[in-house]
Amino acid sequence: MLTTIGFDADDTLWQNESFFRLTQGRFVRLLADYVEQDHLHDRLLAAERRNLGHYGFGVKGFTLSMIETAIEVTNGTVPASVIAEILASGREMLEHPIELLPHARGVVTSLASAYRVILITKGDLLDQERKLAQSGLGDLFDGVEIVSDKTAAAYTAIFRRHGTGADQAMMVGNSLKSDVIPALEAGSWGVHVPHGLTWALEQAAAPVGHRRFHAISDLGELPDLVRIVTE
Amino acid sequence: MLTTIGFDADDTLWQNESFFRLTQGRFVRLLADYVEQDHLHDRLLAAERRNLGHYGFGVKGFTLSMIETAIEVTNGTVPASVIAEILASGREMLEHPIELLPHARGVVTSLASAYRVILITKGDLLDQERKLAQSGLGDLFDGVEIVSDKTAAAYTAIFRRHGTGADQAMMVGNSLKSDVIPALEAGSWGVHVPHGLTWALEQAAAPVGHRRFHAISDLGELPDLVRIVTE
Repeated sequence: MLTTIGFDADDTLWQNESFFRLTQGRFVRLLADYVEQDHLHDRLLAAERRNLGHYGFGVKGFTLSMIETAIEVTNGTVPASVIAEILASGREMLEHPIELLPHARGVVTSLASAYRVILITKGDLLDQERKLAQSGLGDLFDGVEIVSDKTAAAYTAIFRRHGTGADQAMMVGNSLKSDVIPALEAGSWGVHVPHGLTWALEQAAAPVGHRRFHAISDLGELPDLVRIVTE
Repeated sequence: MLTTIGFDADDTLWQNESFFRLTQGRFVRLLADYVEQDHLHDRLLAAERRNLGHYGFGVKGFTLSMIETAIEVTNGTVPASVIAEILASGREMLEHPIELLPHARGVVTSLASAYRVILITKGDLLDQERKLAQSGLGDLFDGVEIVSDKTAAAYTAIFRRHGTGADQAMMVGNSLKSDVIPALEAGSWGVHVPHGLTWALEQAAAPVGHRRFHAISDLGELPDLVRIVTE
């Protein structure tokens, strides 16, 4: 009945949003003379939302949106030295160390012995590959899919390609919007593992009452949930 | 003996480098007051090369490298209005119309009836997907792989996943460095279809004398070459 388990990567297996928050903090300090913090956050989020259809997800698009916002909120008076700092902070994000989340290695290892385990993530292709390589988890997965967006159609295609169809698959991740809801739409189980930090554009209401929706407080609870679901 | 044919996308099936050249021309004009054209080209290419390991291939990284170069060549005096123009030119590249190259549709259509045809491309994930969707060629392909880099290992994995192994596959593209040489290393046929414009970082010497290397002057010659190779 359950053959395949998909894992989200960022903020499910390793820290990610915390690096975005650190960079946003630096961005706020860089522009502190021009604009107040709350307003800057709103403008940056508006730029990210506006640019998502062009840039997709990931650090490069985020960096471009920070630069655009810096020009916008300063009415074109931002000095090039500030832009250079933004570029540098984007490059540093692309080099940040990988911090595995609790239970990530153990849970993927134990489930990999009985299920096909697939990593399913979005973002910049090269950056996601780098993070997977540095995580040391790469060899545990039977398949890796880096997609431009996590839609129901994407889950259907991935679980058909790597498994035995979406209805025999479970998707596990921290984003209700990207990991849980579209996987449920595809007919899979959707398991929410909340992370304290979630990007505003990833927020969604929990599909409470859906018979294949589950929430666990950390990855350590996943093996027990899998056992219950397959009983 | 030959079961699978891989096609590069940019400058093999549709125009790409010409849009980069147009944008570079605009970049030169934007900075004409600060730096002479040849020197600017060199500095931009140096930035692209330096950043490739961070940004990978594609328009977003190119835009970030243009911004970095603009700051560098002006010693930090470039006005934000110029940076805003660079951002705009990058976004326009992400919306450029698809211009199919001669024979692209006909040749892929005819070969798809007898071979597995796979699109293999690198660049920004979302941008490459957009271009494929707009090309109208998407349904012709049995598989699409957008990779961070076109290495021999990448070809080995792709032709194993979508075909019957690299030794029964042919890769067709305009870049000797990315399409032909690593495919030959993987054991495939490598077919070079030169395009008048090739990015400096894609240049390589032709592997003349390799028994599986072929060069054709345009895609229209591919069906005849496939016939000869399989006889």
